[in-house]
This record gives sequence, C-alpha cells and structure tokens, in this order.
Amino acid sequence: MASDFRLKESLPELTEQIVATYTSDDSINHLGHCPLPSYEAVIEILLDLKDILYPGYRRRTNLHAGNIRYHVGGLIDSLHDQLTVQIGRALRHEHRVKQKHDDCVDEIDFEAKGQAMTIELLKRIIPLRKTLATDVQAAFDGDPACQTTDEIVFCYPGFEAITVYRIAHQLVKLDVPFIPRMMTEWAHQQTGIDIHPGATIGDYFFIDHGTGVVIGETCEIGEHVKLYQGVTLGALSFPTDADGQIIRGQKRHPTIEDHVVVYANATILGGRTVVGRDSVIGSSVWITRSVSPATTVLLEKPQLRVRGGDDAADELAPELNYQI
Amino acid sequence: MASDFRLKESLPELTEQIVATYTSDDSINHLGHCPLPSYEAVIEILLDLKDILYPGYRRRTNLHAGNIRYHVGGLIDSLHDQLTVQIGRALRHEHRVKQKHDDCVDEIDFEAKGQAMTIELLKRIIPLRKTLATDVQAAFDGDPACQTTDEIVFCYPGFEAITVYRIAHQLVKLDVPFIPRMMTEWAHQQTGIDIHPGATIGDYFFIDHGTGVVIGETCEIGEHVKLYQGVTLGALSFPTDADGQIIRGQKRHPTIEDHVVVYANATILGGRTVVGRDSVIGSSVWITRSVSPATTVLLEKPQLRVRGGDDAADELAPELNYQI
Amino acid sequence: MASDFRLKESLPELTEQIVATYTSDDSINHLGHCPLPSYEAVIEILLDLKDILYPGYRRRTNLHAGNIRYHVGGLIDSLHDQLTVQIGRALRHEHRVKQKHDDCVDEIDFEAKGQAMTIELLKRIIPLRKTLATDVQAAFDGDPACQTTDEIVFCYPGFEAITVYRIAHQLVKLDVPFIPRMMTEWAHQQTGIDIHPGATIGDYFFIDHGTGVVIGETCEIGEHVKLYQGVTLGALSFPTDADGQIIRGQKRHPTIEDHVVVYANATILGGRTVVGRDSVIGSSVWITRSVSPATTVLLEKPQLRVRGGDDAADELAPELNYQI
Amino acid sequence: MASDFRLKESLPELTEQIVATYTSDDSINHLGHCPLPSYEAVIEILLDLKDILYPGYRRRTNLHAGNIRYHVGGLIDSLHDQLTVQIGRALRHEHRVKQKHDDCVDEIDFEAKGQAMTIELLKRIIPLRKTLATDVQAAFDGDPACQTTDEIVFCYPGFEAITVYRIAHQLVKLDVPFIPRMMTEWAHQQTGIDIHPGATIGDYFFIDHGTGVVIGETCEIGEHVKLYQGVTLGALSFPTDADGQIIRGQKRHPTIEDHVVVYANATILGGRTVVGRDSVIGSSVWITRSVSPATTVLLEKPQLRVRGGDDAADELAPELNYQI
Amino acid sequence: MASDFRLKESLPELTEQIVATYTSDDSINHLGHCPLPSYEAVIEILLDLKDILYPGYRRRTNLHAGNIRYHVGGLIDSLHDQLTVQIGRALRHEHRVKQKHDDCVDEIDFEAKGQAMTIELLKRIIPLRKTLATDVQAAFDGDPACQTTDEIVFCYPGFEAITVYRIAHQLVKLDVPFIPRMMTEWAHQQTGIDIHPGATIGDYFFIDHGTGVVIGETCEIGEHVKLYQGVTLGALSFPTDADGQIIRGQKRHPTIEDHVVVYANATILGGRTVVGRDSVIGSSVWITRSVSPATTVLLEKPQLRVRGGDDAADELAPELNYQI
Amino acid sequence: MASDFRLKESLPELTEQIVATYTSDDSINHLGHCPLPSYEAVIEILLDLKDILYPGYRRRTNLHAGNIRYHVGGLIDSLHDQLTVQIGRALRHEHRVKQKHDDCVDEIDFEAKGQAMTIELLKRIIPLRKTLATDVQAAFDGDPACQTTDEIVFCYPGFEAITVYRIAHQLVKLDVPFIPRMMTEWAHQQTGIDIHPGATIGDYFFIDHGTGVVIGETCEIGEHVKLYQGVTLGALSFPTDADGQIIRGQKRHPTIEDHVVVYANATILGGRTVVGRDSVIGSSVWITRSVSPATTVLLEKPQLRVRGGDDAADELAPELNYQI
Repeated sequence: MASDFRLKESLPELTEQIVATYTSDDSINHLGHCPLPSYEAVIEILLDLKDILYPGYRRRTNLHAGNIRYHVGGLIDSLHDQLTVQIGRALRHEHRVKQKHDDCVDEIDFEAKGQAMTIELLKRIIPLRKTLATDVQAAFDGDPACQTTDEIVFCYPGFEAITVYRIAHQLVKLDVPFIPRMMTEWAHQQTGIDIHPGATIGDYFFIDHGTGVVIGETCEIGEHVKLYQGVTLGALSFPTDADGQIIRGQKRHPTIEDHVVVYANATILGGRTVVGRDSVIGSSVWITRSVSPATTVLLEKPQLRVRGGDDAADELAPELNYQI
Repeated sequence: MASDFRLKESLPELTEQIVATYTSDDSINHLGHCPLPSYEAVIEILLDLKDILYPGYRRRTNLHAGNIRYHVGGLIDSLHDQLTVQIGRALRHEHRVKQKHDDCVDEIDFEAKGQAMTIELLKRIIPLRKTLATDVQAAFDGDPACQTTDEIVFCYPGFEAITVYRIAHQLVKLDVPFIPRMMTEWAHQQTGIDIHPGATIGDYFFIDHGTGVVIGETCEIGEHVKLYQGVTLGALSFPTDADGQIIRGQKRHPTIEDHVVVYANATILGGRTVVGRDSVIGSSVWITRSVSPATTVLLEKPQLRVRGGDDAADELAPELNYQI
Repeated sequence: MASDFRLKESLPELTEQIVATYTSDDSINHLGHCPLPSYEAVIEILLDLKDILYPGYRRRTNLHAGNIRYHVGGLIDSLHDQLTVQIGRALRHEHRVKQKHDDCVDEIDFEAKGQAMTIELLKRIIPLRKTLATDVQAAFDGDPACQTTDEIVFCYPGFEAITVYRIAHQLVKLDVPFIPRMMTEWAHQQTGIDIHPGATIGDYFFIDHGTGVVIGETCEIGEHVKLYQGVTLGALSFPTDADGQIIRGQKRHPTIEDHVVVYANATILGGRTVVGRDSVIGSSVWITRSVSPATTVLLEKPQLRVRGGDDAADELAPELNYQI
Repeated sequence: MASDFRLKESLPELTEQIVATYTSDDSINHLGHCPLPSYEAVIEILLDLKDILYPGYRRRTNLHAGNIRYHVGGLIDSLHDQLTVQIGRALRHEHRVKQKHDDCVDEIDFEAKGQAMTIELLKRIIPLRKTLATDVQAAFDGDPACQTTDEIVFCYPGFEAITVYRIAHQLVKLDVPFIPRMMTEWAHQQTGIDIHPGATIGDYFFIDHGTGVVIGETCEIGEHVKLYQGVTLGALSFPTDADGQIIRGQKRHPTIEDHVVVYANATILGGRTVVGRDSVIGSSVWITRSVSPATTVLLEKPQLRVRGGDDAADELAPELNYQI
Repeated sequence: MASDFRLKESLPELTEQIVATYTSDDSINHLGHCPLPSYEAVIEILLDLKDILYPGYRRRTNLHAGNIRYHVGGLIDSLHDQLTVQIGRALRHEHRVKQKHDDCVDEIDFEAKGQAMTIELLKRIIPLRKTLATDVQAAFDGDPACQTTDEIVFCYPGFEAITVYRIAHQLVKLDVPFIPRMMTEWAHQQTGIDIHPGATIGDYFFIDHGTGVVIGETCEIGEHVKLYQGVTLGALSFPTDADGQIIRGQKRHPTIEDHVVVYANATILGGRTVVGRDSVIGSSVWITRSVSPATTVLLEKPQLRVRGGDDAADELAPELNYQI
Repeated sequence: MASDFRLKESLPELTEQIVATYTSDDSINHLGHCPLPSYEAVIEILLDLKDILYPGYRRRTNLHAGNIRYHVGGLIDSLHDQLTVQIGRALRHEHRVKQKHDDCVDEIDFEAKGQAMTIELLKRIIPLRKTLATDVQAAFDGDPACQTTDEIVFCYPGFEAITVYRIAHQLVKLDVPFIPRMMTEWAHQQTGIDIHPGATIGDYFFIDHGTGVVIGETCEIGEHVKLYQGVTLGALSFPTDADGQIIRGQKRHPTIEDHVVVYANATILGGRTVVGRDSVIGSSVWITRSVSPATTVLLEKPQLRVRGGDDAADELAPELNYQI
C-alpha cells in the first residue's frame, strides 16, 4: 500500500519536455546569468528600514539610550551593502530590457550607481521620520478606538501600508526601477491596501481599516487627507495610441486636495478629477468629475425596496442631514 | 565594478544624526528598559491556543487519544508562562502611559496580575470551544460549496477571523490592554477581515469570503448572523468635546439582532442603528437608520445606462422579486 | 515581582477537563491515526510548482541553461513523492467521511491512487505554462503602469491568485478532494482574491489590484476577460430541498463570455446570468439578469446630495458619455 | 573581475561522467528506493531519550512536577513513531544485505518488527535510569574537582559517552542492527571516547577526561570500574580462516573484573586477558596476559636519559612506592 | 505493512511509570522552578565573546573601521544581558545546593550579583586580548607548517582550547560557579583538549595538535610553555579523609615553569612535582618527581624486540643524541 | 530582584576602549574590506562534495537512478559558484599577506583563478571516488566488528578523516591556500584525527578508532597502510636558520612504505625515518630511525612492578611471541 517506484521512471522524460519549453521567447522564465533583485532580500531591507524608522517596537525590543547607536549603526552599515547589490541588479535588469540584449557582460557599473542611490536613500531617513510622525498623529486624531500612538506603530495596517509606500516612493524619486513595486506589493499582500509607489501623498495621511483601498500611480494627495476601507482612486479609461497600444505614463488618477475625507467604498476616477480642499466624499459615492472646495457629496436617499417588517422604504433611507 | 567602500565613510555620521532624532518627545520610537509585548510571542500564543481549540488540524497532525493529553498539557503549561509575561508587559505599558512616567521601577506587580488574567483565560477555553463549534455548524449550513466541517476549521478565512476575535474578546473582557488588538490585526492581515476585539458577537456566526469586512468596536451582533464579503458595520461620525477632541468609548456602531443576513458590500452605520431579528439586508444597501424585525431591504431597481447590445436598461435592472 | 508557580497547580486539572471535551461527536477536533493533508506540505508543493512554472524568479535565482535541468528534475522528483503522500491523505479522509467510519485500516490503496493523480498533474505542467503565458500577456496589455512582463510574474497579486487557481483547478478536474481548496484559500490570504478552484476560466485572464474579488464555484469565464478589485461573481440564493437543507453542487454563479471587462466593485449574481461577449460592466453596477453581447452597462447619473461648495449635484454626477 | 560563466558549460558533461560511476558494484553509493536509517533522526532520538533519562538539564529547562508528565508523555509518543521507522529501515537494510537482493518490495513487515523492538526499548528506560544513577555516583566519588552531581549530568564527557553506550547496548541486545553503532560513533565524535555498543559494562562505571579511550566489542567490564583518558581495551590480532579472511564475532577483547582502576594511556589487550577484581593498572602499562585479583601493576623505574640540569636519571624516575 | 497503532496503548502507562521515578532523591533529574544555566545560552555567550576578542574572522566577516564600533557595541550590550541571567542562575543553583533547600523564593538578589560579575568580566576583555595575542605569537613561532597568524585564530584547535580556558578562568577568578566548567567541557568536545578552568597558565602558551591533552585543576604553568598532543598534567592519587571521602580542593597537579617544552604523550603527575624552567620533557616520558631547571629528560634506549627484517634491535632504538 | 539598568551606562565607554585596541598592528583582528574565506561556506562545500562522493547516505536519502542526475548536477553547479568565491578570497588573502599591503583594490582577478582551480577540483572527483573505494575496502578487511561497507561510509570516523584529507590534499596540489587546512581542522574536530593536508597517502588506507592520530605535513605513506588510535607520525626537532627562526617547508616527518601496520600509540618521528614495506610497529613503540622492510618491532618485555596479587612481574609482561 504505497506508491510504486517504477511509475517514477517517466519523470526524467517529463523533465526534459518541461525544460524544452524554457525558450528565449517564453515570457515566463528568467534564465540567465543576470539575477533579478531577490524578493527575500528586498523584504529584509524593508524590515531593517522599519527598525530604524521606529526603533524598539518589533524585531529588537530591548533597545535604550545605551545601545541604540550600535543597533542603528549596524543596520545602516548592513543596509548599505544589501541595498547596493539589489539596486544594482534592478538597474542592470532595466538596462537589458531597454537594450533588448541578453548578454550579462556589463559596460556600465550598475553597482556603483546603486551605491550612490543607496546612500541618498539613507540620507532621507531623517525627513522620512518627520513625515511618518505626522501620519501617526493623524491616525491618533482620527480613530476613537485608539488609546496610544504606540498601537498605531505596532499594528495599524493603514500605517504599515503608508510606511512602505513612503519608503518606496523615495526610491521612485531616485529612479530605482522594479524594487519600489516589489515593496508596495508586499505591503498590499500584508494589508490589502494597494498604493502605487509613484503616487504623491502629503503629510498627516490616514487610512482606516484599509482593506481594498487602491491608490493609482499618478494620484496627487494633499495633507491631512483621510481614507476609509474600499476607497478607489483610479483611472477612467486608458488612452491608446494610433496602433491601439495603451499610452503609459500619463496622469490617469485624481488629485485630492488638503483636508479631504473619503468614506468607505467611495470611488473617484480620472486624471482631470480634482477634489477640492476641505471636501467630504460620502460612503459609496462614485465621482468622475471635479468637486469644488469645502463640498460634501453624499448619496441621495437611495431607492430601497422593503418586504415584510413595519418600515416604509422611505423611512429606511438615510436621513438627508446625517453626518458621515 | 563594485561598490566603493570609501563612500561608506559617511555612514557613521549619518548614524549619529539619526540617533539624535530619537528624543523623548518623538512619538515613533519606543526606547527604554520596559519592553512592549513581543509581536512574535503573541502570535505564537495565538497559534498554541488554536492547537488546543482544534487539535489535530494544523501544526501537530499525529494526535490521537493516546497522546493528546501530553500535547495539550504541554501547551497549557507553556501558554501559562508565555501569556503571563506578555500580559505583564502590556499592563506595565498601559500603566506608564496613564501615569505619564518613564521609569521602569515597578511599584505594582504586573506579572502577578498577568498570571491571574492568564489562568482565567485558560479556564475559558472550554466554553470557547462550545461557541466555536456553533460557528463551524453555521458555516457548514451556510455554504453549499462545503463538503465537510473539517474544511472549515482547516482553511476558511471567515472562521479564522472569528476564532481570533473570540480569543481576543475574552482578553478584552479581562481588561487586558494592547494584546487583543495585536491579535485581531494579525487576523486582519491574514484574512482581510477586520473585527474589533471589543465587539460583542453571539453564537452561530458566519462570514463568507470575508475580504473587506469591517466590524467596529461597539457593534452588538446576535446569534445566527451571517455576513458576506465587504460588509461594513461602522460609525457615522464621531462626537467631539468642547475642545474639538473626539470622545472615545461611546457606542458608535450598529446592533444586529438574531438571524440577520447581510449580503456583500452592504454598509450599516451608526450606534443607534438596530437591524431587527430575521431581517435581510441586500447587497450594496447602505443604511443609517434602524430596520424592524423580519424586514428585507434591497436596492430598488437601479438606474442603469446601457449602450449597445439588445437590452433596455429596464430589462437589466434586477427583478424586484429576486431573492438574494 | 513575578508569577507564583503555586498557582500553576491547577493546570493539570484544567488539561484533563479540556481533553474530556475532545469527544468523537465534537466537530472541531481531528484526533485519530489518519492525518489530514499537511498545510505546510501543500504550500511547499505550491511553491515548488511555481518554481517549475516560472523558473528563475523567486526562490532560486541563479538558474541558467546549464543547470536548469537539474533544478527542475530535482523538483519534479520531490514533487512526485510529496504530492503522492498528500493526495493519498486527502483521498483517505474523503473516503472515511463518506463511509462515516473511523478506522484507519485501509481497504483501498489511496497512495497508489494519489500517485496516479500526481503523475497526471505533472504531465499538465506544459499546457499550464502555455495558459499562464497568456495571462501574463493580458496583464501587460491591460496595465499602463507595467514596464515589463517580469514584474507581473514577480509581484502582481492578480497573477499570483490566477496561478494558484489554475493549479488547483487541475486538481479538481482530477477529482482530488480537499487540497485544491487549501491552495486557493492560501492564495486568498496572500492576495485578498478568492477564486473557487471549481470555477472554469479561459485564457488571457487578468485581475487588476484584486483585493476583494470573489469568483464562485460554478462560474464560467471566457477568454480575454478582465476584472478589477472588489468584483463579486456570486450566487443569488441557495435552493433548499424539502427538508430545508441546501442543495450542493448546482450552478449558482454567472457565466462571463469572452472579451468582457468588469470594473471595480461590480456585482454579478446568479447561475442563469450570462454576460454576453464584448460587454463592459461599469464600476459598482449590480446585475442579476443576463446582458446581451457588446453591451455597456453603467450606473445612471447617481442621485447626489451636495452641501456647501459651488457645485450643483447634477454637475458632480458622472457624465453620461464617460468611458470606464 | 569575476568568474566567467562560459567556463561552466563543461559542468553538465562532468555531471554525466560522475553519475556514470554510480554503478551497482560501486561500494560507496547507496542509490535505490530503500533508504538507510536517517542519521539526523537517530541523533534526534538519542537527544529525546536523554531528555527522558535526565529531565530538566538541557533542552527543556522549565520542567517541574506540574508539567513533566506532559513533556515525557509527548516524547515517549514521538519516540515510538520515530524509532519504529528507523529500526524498520535498519532491519530491511540488514535483510537485503544478507539476501544480496536489491528489490525493495518487502516480504517481511519490518516496521512491525521495529515497533516491537521500540516498545521493548522504551520499557527498559526505568532500569536504565537506575544504572545511570550509579554511574553518576561513581563519577562524583571519583573526581575531587566535582562539586555537585548536576555537573556530571550536565557536562561530563565520560558520562555522555556511557549514557549513549548504555542506550545503544540495549538496542544491540534487542538485535537492532546498524543504529547502535551510529549512536556510539556520534558519542565518539562528541567525546573522543569510543565504546563499542556490543561491550558489556557493569554499574558504577566512570571514565575521567576520557579522550582516546577505546573499549572493544567483546570487552566484559564489571562493576565499580574506573578508566582514565587514553586507555585501550583492545584486541591482540585477529584470527583468520583458511582463506585468510578475518573471523568476525569471537571474543577478542579483555575482561575487567569489579573494582579495577586503569590509569591513563594503559593498554590491555586480548580476549583471554582477565584483570582480576580490586586490581590497579598503572599509567602507560601495557598488558596482554591476565592479572590476579588485588594486584597493582606499575611501570618499573623507567630508564631515563638526562642532559643538563642537576638531576641524576635515577632521581627522576618515579618512586617505586608511589600510589597512582 | 506498518506499525500497529493499537500497540501504542501501553505508552501512557509507561509514561506514568517513568514519571514516578523522578523523585526528589533521584540524582539525575532537575525538576523544579529554578532553572540551571542554559547550555545553548552559555555557548552563544562564548561565541559572542570570541567575536569581540577576534573581530572579523568567523561569524561576521564584513567588519571594518566604519562598522566595528556598532558590531562590538551591540555584542557588549547583549552579552551584558545574557551573561547576567546565566550567572544569576548559576549562583542561585550553587546557593541551593549548599543550603540543601529546594524552595525557589530568593532571599538573595542573585541577578544583581551576576550583573556585577558580568561587568567585571567585560572589563577584562582588553587584558585578555593582550594575553591571547601572545598565545598567537607562540603558535606562529612554534609551528613550521603555519603561514600566517590568521590561520591560528581561524582554525587551530590548540588556540581554540586556550581561548575558552582563558575566558573560563576569568570567571573562576570572579567566583562564578558551574559556567566555567560548561565552557571548558564544550572546548574539550570541540578540540579533544581538556583544560580545567581552575588551572593557572602564563602568557605565550602553545598546544600543538592537542588531542588528548589533559591539564588538571591545580596546575600552575609559566610563560612560553609548549605542549604536544596527549600530554597529561595530572594527579597521582587523591588524599582521603578519616571516613575515606576524597578531600577536594588541594594542589594535586604539577607546576611547569617558564620556557618548558613537553613532547607528545608525556605524563607529569603530582601536586609537588615541579618541572624547572627551560627544561624539555621527551615524548612518552612519565614523571612523578620534580625536575631541575634546564634539564632534558628523554626515554632511555627502549628495549625493542625485532622479528624479521635486517635490523638489530639496538640499531632501531632511538639515538641517544637525538633532539626532540 | 533583577539587574540594574543604570549600571549598563558604563558599557558604551567600555566599547570604545575595546575598539581602540583593534589597531593595524594587532595580530588578532581581521578588519577591512577583504573578507577571509567563510568557515561556514567551506564546511558546506565539504558536505556537498561528500554528497557527490557517496550519494544516498547522509543528507539526501531518497536517491535512485531516476533522480540522481538532478541531485548531482545541482550540487556540481552550486559547488562551482561557492568554491570559486571562497578560493578567490583565499588567493586574495594570501597575495595581500605576501605583498604586505592592505588595500583591497585588486590588480589580479583572483576569482577567475579560483574558478579555474574549482573546475579542476571538480574534474578530480571521479579518480577521488576510485581511491576512496579502496579505503572502504581496507576498512572492511581490517575490522572484524564491521558487517557491511555501508557502515564505514556512514559512521566510521577514520574514513571521515581520510575523506576530508583526500579532498583537501587535492586543493593543496592545486596551490589553493588556507582552505585545505580549514577542512582538515574541521575533520580533526569531528574525529580527533589530525592529518595535515600536505601529507601524501596511498590507496587502501585505514585508521581504526583513530582518536589522537597525528600525521604531519611532509609524511609519505604508501598503499595498504593501517594505523590505530594515538599513532603519531611527527617531526623530531625543527631546523632553525642563522637567526634562530625555524625553517618552514622541509621534510620533517617519516615515510611509511606499503603494507605497514602501526599499532596504537606508537610514535614514529623524523624526516629521514623510513619504515620499510610489510613491517609491523607494535603498540607504544617509539622510533626515530629507519626500519628495514618486513620487520616487526615490539616493545621488549616491559619492566613491571607488581604489588599484591599472585603474579610475578615476569609473568605479567607480554609474551615475546605474541602477535599484535
């Protein structure tokens, strides 16, 4: 009562057949001597950066004034080496894709470029900490269930997604390819919040609950903006060129000005759509045109159909003067 | 073609600059000699508790009548020690936040308090198992794709989220700070379902698919309730005090009575909103006022705009007599 | 200031009480000598299969023409052994559930059956790679933010969910119980996308962003279909038999024909609902009846209520001639 | 400045050449479908057994009256399963070697035999503990540098070697092949003490320092015997049969009666050599014939040659009336 | 063909029987709430200390002037915490053994004592490094097969044993119980060299090859001493008191003065034996009385018996004028 | 009752003081940007090589004709990469030591050299396997306690030491610095057998028990030689040059011709000492001059001193006609 090892004899032939499909025009293999950035290494880099941004919370808990210098210094040193290698790989990969050549003999010193980008990123840690402290403040001010700011750093998924976005966005600004998207997709997997690293987002940003939030590549978001779960800041349709190919890189996603609140499951679409400052977009509202500043947009009394019970449909519809 | 180690000479200076930002009024560091609860330890505690609640499914598969006693006894013993330490840390942290002092010399024996809370939680495992068995039954009765109850315990994300919530809720009732939220945010990350540990939920609870479900802190949910993906049981707006500060702790989320079904993406808001027993809330319905018992609330024929094709808008709108 | 070990003396008694609840009519234990498939082993199998489907991306990066044969051959050999054991377990479990007996003395050689199914699955790797290459192409054509197809294989959650679904679906077709659902629930957890392994999906399938997507067990989806986040392809209500028990296995979910696009948060329900080829279903549309081919269905100008600001409600409503 | 990947092109050919040397008459490969016992598993079994023999010292330190039952019960259960598999493998291997056949289709249920042997070994744990307690006492009485018996259990290499020998010897008595030698060679590596598992050794046995001690397969050692480092209890020469083949299994090693002490680097050889009770064999003495009871054998004044210094050779030679 | 799970039913009874033997007068269990020092933790501490003593060799290779401060600072900080705990455990254990009481309620703050001892040990790292540098020099000067001093630090077992001894000896001088012996027995296992941590050894100490070397607790060894493999510096016999109990703590092992060389397998015994400075003790010589300074002691022409060949026994005996 | 964290304040100062001792003339640090070979990597390489030399024994047990190609091919590919890096590091280190410069900017492509040496080593695996098979045969023929050749490959320490020596010796012949000694010192630690990688040893070599065996750098050993535990093949004294510096690299160790047996603890010293073919050197014999072929050298009746018992010293001395 066990497997019959003679049936395994077909496996070597099967191996040969599978290997034969790994041809150079096969789009789903990456064989060759130039490795892509390592997923595991990039995530490890993210975790190290978080340890520097928020020391004492997660991976190393016994930090204090007497040892923090050593901990951070060791991380910075190690980050320099790791990130240099991974950015170097990403640059080489991008170059080869653009040049459409397969040879791994480098005419360009990608690692030296990677090192310069790495050192620049490390220099930006201090301003990043300032910005992230504003995000923590926004979360504390915006969530009545929150007791201390420690909880936010420790386990709020919205803050996790924003942290990763803010790191990845700095890499985008440094023209690092490939790696920023790896980072934000990892955060997407952890939190259900999908922020494209190319988006621009101001200080004091807060996402509550967050599952299902999508923020597109060309969004511009001001300061003191607050989003709830399921909000989409997306594109309408994609312009195509004369050949029917979609044109990449244009502004396709909306602009959200300062002090705007967008409630759960609202959808705001289009690159020319601007939600003016101090506006409120109600739950499940769906907008494709600009909104003036200081405007509240709510769904009008929905048409409900009621069966049974003692209520009239009209009574169940949300009051027109509710606050969200 | 490699990184130039001389460029690394700036890193120690950068380290000093970063360390200088870890001041006592910096809200995003946790330096000092009083550690927070360990995230890894808390998750390990959760996994151990699940092994006791549902023996034989996941981590240790070869369990039977002859060895289950040893397995469970070892887990209980270890849980006692681990949980005592972590709850002690959480209590000390809460105390220091409230007292706004930074000294780690304890005047209170937090670990002794933690031990008492731990033993009480362990005593509640037996009633917890009874409640969770009702949740499994509800899932089996509610999902036609399900073949056996084993599948539910093994891999249903809704059941995973409910399990973690029910554990965390017991900790809330014991006044354990910080840790319950760590637990439910971990479940949120695993399942996309965000149940606040402070919510009150009756037996036979079922969440199908579940991604995007949000259940707020002051929700009260009866027995035999069933939710689908994307349902929000949320707050309307937060009352603020005279200084504009939000008031924490009030009932802000709805009450759902027994035998209610809420379909996908429905939104029910407000602390005074009550959905009466035996009611059905249709997909995408949005409600901020109470619903009488035995009521079905559906979206009225939506206004659709149709281009091309052979259908009239009217024909596409959902039939009024559909059942959800 | 520490825990009092004398209080631990109650733990053995508590252990006995908990163990006493693990009775044979308790639905949430799985004690006995017949183990379920191992969750860890099944996930490892998935990761190995992905390494064969897309060599060189994730776990082993230094692959090239000179060593790929060894890498794949080793994986195939190991997969044969692992999958044989796990399918054998799943078959034995299913048999015992159907026979309602508890004895683990096998009258059937489940492992031999598992081996046959395993070898058949391995043979299907080559056509699977062909299909998955079409999915990559669809993602590249459909996402203007995408620079190279490598990004898709590397970190697109939609593609991750589709990959796992396509593997699991082959196992469903081979009548392997239990394991396909374990696989797709793992992908659900990773991506927030819940595709039932029983669904039928054609080539060139693309899911963008994806969080909250639900695709039910009896869906039939054609080629060149594209879904956005939050789309539900679900059931209306479940038919019950004379005793009120739900009837399992009927077609309960819609059919989506070729070249259909469904935008974010749209909901399409019902086993008799067919969305005809070349149709477009707009964001947040909610449909329970069939749609003719080449039809665009959008929400009609929603009724908005506007407070403050300079806009009239009418102006904010989406233009009727927008393209999604 | 790196390796040239084109030079790697010769590796597949080299692989083929190496694989071609793994023929069936090649004595140093073990290819086939019948695995040998796993080295890692056997060592893990040893460590588990030591945890039961001496609870609370090494791997699990927080054991007490309240949890020891669970710890030991779990280990016994796991040992049963692990040891059954490994003994089954060893028996099958022995059978195939004796039958000189290569087929792995079993006509004998080796695992059932392994289970019976395993259960018998587990039953012998209690008498083993009694014997090992006498060895600890002997070490404490014999080493003036020792403060507590805990040190002996914790870190005396002589006691480590004796423990492993005593376990392995029980397996020899149960006719378990292969595994006893794996165990004692592991102890040999850890301690430099090489005790053949077939030797017979009485209670209250002590080896001090121990590096270089060799105790042959057919030694018989009484109670209260004490050995120092470098002692060899070996064979003279091996009898050969008419064909010049060495005859295996005869008594080739000496007998040491009760209460004998053998000092460092002494050598006692031969199967007919008996060292009578209460005797003392001095350092570096070399003996191939029997010694009567109650005899002290020392090296006579060695012939030393002295250059320089103020000593005559005679003065340096050890006094004849020294005690060892 | 597998194990019969019904036979496992005897295991719980066996467990009970084994547990019943763990009584308080059983010398080979350590049950209770006061743990011994952790073996794993003590070894980890040793490895950390070696990383500080010899930075850049083994565990962390990429160290340079820019990051060494962080690496060492982190290790010192961590060592402080770890060593404090382990010494505290060792002190409590010693106290309880001396007081013969079993209660774990401490009247003494052992951890505070442990901290003081820990800080003192850390202060001794700098003089330790000076001494160890002399040992490296001695090895380089004494071994013609050695190319660079790096090899010595990297892989010479004699240097490994001396390093561990020198650390452990400092702990002995600080009156730390138990842990020094754990350390040197670990080194014994690694190298086959058994140096008691209580021995006193001067600078420029070298052990070549080393397997089988034994250096007793009360040895005193001067500077520039060199030992080869198999050398024993041991005790003659142990004095016993009126009751026949051995008297612990007296000087039982020899004194070796400066610039002495002892060749392979020589044995020097006795607490009153002094080998005067600049002496040479030849291979296999066995000495129990003192040797004047500047003396060479060799074995006189051994009596050999020769069979066959062309040599007379006399010719084979070592020349009297050989140099060792 | 715990450590006082204020006492930790001295640690940063202590760190600074320790770091200040890591100067460039300090012989026991290896700081800088040119790493030494990694100990862990070199051991991993050894284990991989052993897996190719003896497939199916230790790390990967389920190997058979159908998968061995993949296993070996993967190992060869990985070994190429790993060994190239480590040999490159060793070559660079040697170059810098010889050039006495500290700069890490390479004028020589050490990695390219390392690759050539690596490929050459891999080519020598096939002849190595032939030689090692003769060693297994010698062990089987020489040990009456051995049942099958599998035991030898699996757990004989003498064979382990010979295997590592033979690999390391090939690296010596390829002029790879540093790494061969790392390998043999690792084997020394595992087995207590210290074979210098520079020694020359013929086929059919067997070491029984082996603890304490030392074989010097310039030994030449023929075929069919057998050694027992504690045998030293060493140097007499080291010639020094005019300045008193020892001269490195001369032949200092003996030559042992074919078919010689050397029994336990015998010592053979000197670079001009030759033990002629077919000779036998008895246990504990000590030789510094050459021995003609076919000679048996035994210790003459030793002078024993006997106290008590019934034996005369003469009777206890070994018989003159014993065979060893």
